[in-house]
Amino acid sequence: MAQNSISALKLDKIVSLAKRRGFVFQSSEIYGGLNGAWDYGPLGVELLRNVKDEWWETMTLRDDVEGLDASILMHPRVWEASGHVENFTDPMVDCKQCKARFRVDVLFDEMSLKKKKEVLRELDPARFGGQQKDEIIESEFAKLTESDQQAAKIAAMLPCPSCGNKGTFTEARKFNLMFKTFVGPVEDSSSVVFLRPETAQGIFVNFLNVITASRQRLPFGIAQIGKAFRNEINTKNFLFRTREFEQMEMQFFVKPGVDDKWFEYWREQRMQWYLNLGMSKEQLRWHQHPKEKLAHYAKDAYDIEFLFPFGWGEIEGVHNRTNFDLSRHEEFSGKSLKYFDEETKERYTPFVIETSCGASRSFMAFLTGSYHEEEARTAEGGAETRVVLKFHPRLAPIKAAIFPLVNRDGMQDLARNIEKDLRSQYRVFYDESGAVGRRYRRQDEVGTPYCVTVDSQTLQDQSVTVRDRDTMLQERVSSAQLSHYLHDKLRWQN
Amino acid sequence: MAQNSISALKLDKIVSLAKRRGFVFQSSEIYGGLNGAWDYGPLGVELLRNVKDEWWETMTLRDDVEGLDASILMHPRVWEASGHVENFTDPMVDCKQCKARFRVDVLFDEMSLKKKKEVLRELDPARFGGQQKDEIIESEFAKLTESDQQAAKIAAMLPCPSCGNKGTFTEARKFNLMFKTFVGPVEDSSSVVFLRPETAQGIFVNFLNVITASRQRLPFGIAQIGKAFRNEINTKNFLFRTREFEQMEMQFFVKPGVDDKWFEYWREQRMQWYLNLGMSKEQLRWHQHPKEKLAHYAKDAYDIEFLFPFGWGEIEGVHNRTNFDLSRHEEFSGKSLKYFDEETKERYTPFVIETSCGASRSFMAFLTGSYHEEEARTAEGGAETRVVLKFHPRLAPIKAAIFPLVNRDGMQDLARNIEKDLRSQYRVFYDESGAVGRRYRRQDEVGTPYCVTVDSQTLQDQSVTVRDRDTMLQERVSSAQLSHYLHDKLRWQN
Repeated sequence: MAQNSISALKLDKIVSLAKRRGFVFQSSEIYGGLNGAWDYGPLGVELLRNVKDEWWETMTLRDDVEGLDASILMHPRVWEASGHVENFTDPMVDCKQCKARFRVDVLFDEMSLKKKKEVLRELDPARFGGQQKDEIIESEFAKLTESDQQAAKIAAMLPCPSCGNKGTFTEARKFNLMFKTFVGPVEDSSSVVFLRPETAQGIFVNFLNVITASRQRLPFGIAQIGKAFRNEINTKNFLFRTREFEQMEMQFFVKPGVDDKWFEYWREQRMQWYLNLGMSKEQLRWHQHPKEKLAHYAKDAYDIEFLFPFGWGEIEGVHNRTNFDLSRHEEFSGKSLKYFDEETKERYTPFVIETSCGASRSFMAFLTGSYHEEEARTAEGGAETRVVLKFHPRLAPIKAAIFPLVNRDGMQDLARNIEKDLRSQYRVFYDESGAVGRRYRRQDEVGTPYCVTVDSQTLQDQSVTVRDRDTMLQERVSSAQLSHYLHDKLRWQN
Repeated sequence: MAQNSISALKLDKIVSLAKRRGFVFQSSEIYGGLNGAWDYGPLGVELLRNVKDEWWETMTLRDDVEGLDASILMHPRVWEASGHVENFTDPMVDCKQCKARFRVDVLFDEMSLKKKKEVLRELDPARFGGQQKDEIIESEFAKLTESDQQAAKIAAMLPCPSCGNKGTFTEARKFNLMFKTFVGPVEDSSSVVFLRPETAQGIFVNFLNVITASRQRLPFGIAQIGKAFRNEINTKNFLFRTREFEQMEMQFFVKPGVDDKWFEYWREQRMQWYLNLGMSKEQLRWHQHPKEKLAHYAKDAYDIEFLFPFGWGEIEGVHNRTNFDLSRHEEFSGKSLKYFDEETKERYTPFVIETSCGASRSFMAFLTGSYHEEEARTAEGGAETRVVLKFHPRLAPIKAAIFPLVNRDGMQDLARNIEKDLRSQYRVFYDESGAVGRRYRRQDEVGTPYCVTVDSQTLQDQSVTVRDRDTMLQERVSSAQLSHYLHDKLRWQN
């Protein structure tokens, strides 16, 4: 089986598990779903909350980072200043025959190597007439389509994927990816507002308010978690490219000149965060944006990429945004956003180091990265596949499950008491149905790190067994000590 | 001064404090603001998080409530089934002269008693020709305007508040309060989706998915926190009526017949929640919806109202929604949403008891309700007004502040060490600037329950003073015991 189909199979399995066990459901599923929108079920919402809480505490328990929660609807001028009205667009073509609409870069993504070779040959027969290595074809094609003009020309050469006709595409046009709506009862251009396409601008427009209220001095940061929306034409890869998603962004304001140092500092901090939460070095890598592809606001930009079942994908960007955003908001609002440095008596527009993390994408990374299939023995001595989500205990939706070994009154009562005791501090799950082996498997599948079994010995000496999800080893622990035992275990550091 | 102006003054003071200290900023303020949208600053975001976390834990640490986080964008059929497309409307009139648009009920709200008397007299001279008590006028006017037809007739009699002309209003028309946007590149009716106007429907359409994944049996509930949007024409009263807001909703599914019992149960639970978090009985009351004013889905409905500076306002609804929502979604989706009761072998559509709490409104209630002005003595023996936010310690954004009494090296180092120690567990604030009396006042104003002072005695015996925000009494505590001391204090029960 090719690597691609194995990966697709793995993603399918995870999507199916996610639905069956209540991590992620399709939005409005009973109505056939809404493309690019997903709902987090009982276990998913806990995993997502744990990821967000970890990020929030890491950021805002620092004395040099303040929190913020700005609204999704903002003044439309914000998006003129940020450049989104003008630049947040994708080139699109319409098929004049069947009226279908396509993003040009997606047309390219879906082209076969053979097709790309044909196009290159047609455009430059002298150079591409003979044999070429696959990598050369790919890289030459990618280079060619970097220019919007060339891309439009190539798009016009392609057949419509929907009706199959050739030469039916319109010229490529810019399509803005911001969702728009109307505030107030009149629907015209004066009432248009946008659903924010990123949370960052909410931080920039509040820079003055936050620094004044908090009495912070540079360097300091503002952290925010919140939803953002992009009218993606082609959603794909489960939670990876969706129309509604959640971001965890921190913008760190520094004096120009020390930005490179802080850029390095935050790169290190952010990579370490994923490692601390159980990701392995092999699942993570840096991707530096090449100079010629840097966004208009950026001096330097690195993405943290995660190895998803579909391949490497960005889960966070650490970017040096310079003073672009604050300067633009100064220009568009007419309000000074300069900082007065009490020490040096200088007045300047701070530089910004951005750490922009996808909460939904991190969620998907933690979910897919923790998925394991292992050979295991059944109670009868046979072999079976054990599916286990090896979440970091701090991220696990359920911290412990409690099982009475058999359904006898004394055991059930004891187990229920233990459950009640733990429930005030931890998210726990009580299960008395089925063989204990099956109960273990059900918890493995949702990543519960500890299973507590109440057996006949418990009735005598009040001790329980605690079984570790990853090693599957069991330990006897006094039930009176259980809360402390779990407390220590759940502080697990990588 | 009339009661009304005192209250308005109080609200103004709180809004000003909220901005100055970083609880709430106007959205996009540097661009003149966006009406009906607010941003939570560094202290506000912590207060809001604390309110939401308290609610989430109260609900979902129970074994009979599951969590959910559904998307804001949903399939448009959801809002046909729920009745929002048809019924979530306000009657509006346009002024033909100046083109201004008004919600009819707001026109009525803003009418003086004298004006109402005139209208009644004109409509029914026989009955309202003579003298009438003010209450009679108010209640008769309210009764009259309950019918849409009569309301439209009365609206036509009023002068336009904007241009002052009379007889210039169009007939009243229905205006839908849902924000709409377009998914995908084509903007037409087939691509319309709405920003959800309530989070409840996300729960109903996921009922089957959640019950299947969680293996819950009735009675059980689904809890969700999330943003909702309403295109209110007239936003008012700070965070009370906004276009973007956050809800904390729990829908509890029960067998028909036991719904009344569970309705009473949840009414009691929900009222107790506010009392547990420091609200007083005098600030809270029940409002039962009169039978003739019940929403189309409701069998019985009570609101919890809070005494805001502007008067009583709803902060939560506890409603018996019957099987209306699930039945409608069955009808519109064609999917069975019936529950099979293993015990009685019956199949039925569950009834729903809803507890729908405004997170933004609760935030405002906790903020305004905790605002106090007290006479206090200055260090010099004079009198001053002490402004103090008496938050429940669990809700307070900052748990403790640490002050070195004088700026001497040893004291600062000690204070910084204590800060560092506490910071890993609590949100704390370090302040060394200004007289200690002023530092206390700054913390009182943001509701910090404990202020820890490091003084010369600390240098000798490692003890610090801990000053209580409400009693202003000070206690000496060993700095080694400080973390435990705070831990116990922060568990404060009402």
